[in-house]
Amino acid sequence: MSLSKDPEGGRVVTARALHSWTARLLERIGTPPDIAEDVADVLVAADLRGIASHGTARLPQSVKLVESGVLDPTARPVHEKGKVALARFDARNGWGPHAGRVASDDAVERARDVGCAASVVKNANHFGIAGWYAMRAADQGLIGVSLSNTSPVVAPTRSRVPLLGTNPIAVAAPAGRFGMVVLDMATSTVPWGRLEVAARRGETLPPGWAIGPDGSPAATLEQAFQGALVPLGGAEETGGYKGYGLALVVEILTGILGDAAFGPNILGLFSTEGRSNLGQFFLAIDPAAVDGTAAFSTRLEKLLTQLSAAPTLPDAPGPVLFAGQPEAERSDHQVRHGIAIDPEHHRSLQALGERYQQPFPRARSLTRKNRSKRSAPEGAPDDSAT
Amino acid sequence: MSLSKDPEGGRVVTARALHSWTARLLERIGTPPDIAEDVADVLVAADLRGIASHGTARLPQSVKLVESGVLDPTARPVHEKGKVALARFDARNGWGPHAGRVASDDAVERARDVGCAASVVKNANHFGIAGWYAMRAADQGLIGVSLSNTSPVVAPTRSRVPLLGTNPIAVAAPAGRFGMVVLDMATSTVPWGRLEVAARRGETLPPGWAIGPDGSPAATLEQAFQGALVPLGGAEETGGYKGYGLALVVEILTGILGDAAFGPNILGLFSTEGRSNLGQFFLAIDPAAVDGTAAFSTRLEKLLTQLSAAPTLPDAPGPVLFAGQPEAERSDHQVRHGIAIDPEHHRSLQALGERYQQPFPRARSLTRKNRSKRSAPEGAPDDSAT
Repeated sequence: MSLSKDPEGGRVVTARALHSWTARLLERIGTPPDIAEDVADVLVAADLRGIASHGTARLPQSVKLVESGVLDPTARPVHEKGKVALARFDARNGWGPHAGRVASDDAVERARDVGCAASVVKNANHFGIAGWYAMRAADQGLIGVSLSNTSPVVAPTRSRVPLLGTNPIAVAAPAGRFGMVVLDMATSTVPWGRLEVAARRGETLPPGWAIGPDGSPAATLEQAFQGALVPLGGAEETGGYKGYGLALVVEILTGILGDAAFGPNILGLFSTEGRSNLGQFFLAIDPAAVDGTAAFSTRLEKLLTQLSAAPTLPDAPGPVLFAGQPEAERSDHQVRHGIAIDPEHHRSLQALGERYQQPFPRARSLTRKNRSKRSAPEGAPDDSAT
Repeated sequence: MSLSKDPEGGRVVTARALHSWTARLLERIGTPPDIAEDVADVLVAADLRGIASHGTARLPQSVKLVESGVLDPTARPVHEKGKVALARFDARNGWGPHAGRVASDDAVERARDVGCAASVVKNANHFGIAGWYAMRAADQGLIGVSLSNTSPVVAPTRSRVPLLGTNPIAVAAPAGRFGMVVLDMATSTVPWGRLEVAARRGETLPPGWAIGPDGSPAATLEQAFQGALVPLGGAEETGGYKGYGLALVVEILTGILGDAAFGPNILGLFSTEGRSNLGQFFLAIDPAAVDGTAAFSTRLEKLLTQLSAAPTLPDAPGPVLFAGQPEAERSDHQVRHGIAIDPEHHRSLQALGERYQQPFPRARSLTRKNRSKRSAPEGAPDDSAT
């Protein structure tokens, strides 16, 4: 998951204020309070971790789905069928983060009993950052895996047209004094939302991210939006078929296994034309079943110590990191100093707040002082950001 | 898993003859017949699928491990502990393919009962192609996942030194009339064995595969052998941290979860200095627990039909393929026309046969006629290759 840079001309709001406002806004559009809490948890976690593409910036689009009757804000997932280590849930077209939380919690609970357990979900909507569900398992001492299919924006190797989603893979594991390892990656070169962030911020399109509608490499964001992202690894010669293979495997474990929509048959995630019917997959593995969580984390600590101490490349911009480390540092910083959001994101939430008589909290201008410094966050807490 | 090209000046031997010879040779060095069958199954499957780096070409190295007392050819894995959906096996330093077969079969059996089940293995040796175990699950209607750590030859993003293995990920799923989807990939740009094959064949090193001992991009195979492979995705700017993250996740589910050796602490796989103590992980998921295997495969057929029919890039060398399709076509071809092996591989097996009074079967010269044509294999069977 690529970390967004601090936005130019951005604003700063505390995590607490943003969370509370998000939950209240969701209630205003008909979401029961407990479901609203789940959705706010996942969206604000994305913002905290610097994944601007998957956080509250998506709220206006999600609200539109509710307004148009496409997403049912009151729906609760039901356990349909399965066995102790594999259950299928029907999310009944409700909020993605709520169904994901319920299904992944259920997998964790069963994994505690039998060592390893999965949930697969159908009729789901976008569930935010895949990493959140894996981290929730790791918080409880388990290894968590979380997958989702998404609408088709990635062109398989050799294809001129998009047929698969960015189909993210997230895995998290408890790592003792290192917190946790969290891999949370799109199986494309970048997630689709990263293009949207780039467009919001007037950035140019780096080479290798996308193809245009005619299949040639996209030179501009406009061409990319009309074309397709490319799988992780890029072109066929540079191993792009591996990224395509990973996306296909995610599709198999989500849409195909879950009897949800799949591949080119998925409507745009934020299309008001009809339901997304996404498939999602959650796996929990309990190290205590074979060894004890403490022994597991101790070994992982040893490995991370070895990785962190590695001699670096001559031109390396810093030490060797592990998956999830930059996002955790960004989150720690933003918990203390407030969450940086870009101007368009800020204006869109203000407008949403006005429409639903839920005024957006006061947000301070982003100054040099509260810009994130990944490796050395400033020490002084700053609670004045509301 | 990158398919090797047909070797220049190569030989052709039938799969049956190669399998039988391999099993008998393994018996000559003290392997019980049933274990020898498992090892021969996995090695010959790699040769059939065109993965020359992981097939019988590895026999001379493996035999050396037995001769030097490092690998115990008679050892049988034992179930140590666990719960119904997660079991740990101690491979007791025996043949990798045998322990892998036993542990993955056990996971499949338990998955049939509870829907999903995993085995983790410690004290293991190299198990050949990871895909074999996943395919064995898919052959029985389940989704199979197979992972292994390997000796450190990959430099994590920013690191100048190798600290992780090529840590393969394999996933297979039954796909009805398409056979099966089989993703079998190193989490590095290429597997280490691919470098060895390139060296055997006098090929040059493509850019982007490896770094030299000083951390700069390797220009020659010699520099690469003294340096390190790079993770899938390449450099940091092109998403190499995703390949590194995948390798780390594999390490967590194998060496760390299995209480085996991990990361930089693993000896060379074919080092006679001591035991490898690899960790391996097998997961089986039974679609029948939620839906029925037939419905699952029917949906996957539909997706593969859509992928195969996609309009291609202007410069695409052929139609859109799915993971495992080229290897399955290669295997079909070589089952009928014999397995192509390169001259050095051939000579090394002949020498092994002479040493153990188990003469290598007669192998015909590789001619244009029995070169593989991936998309249009020749129709006439050719059993004269012995």
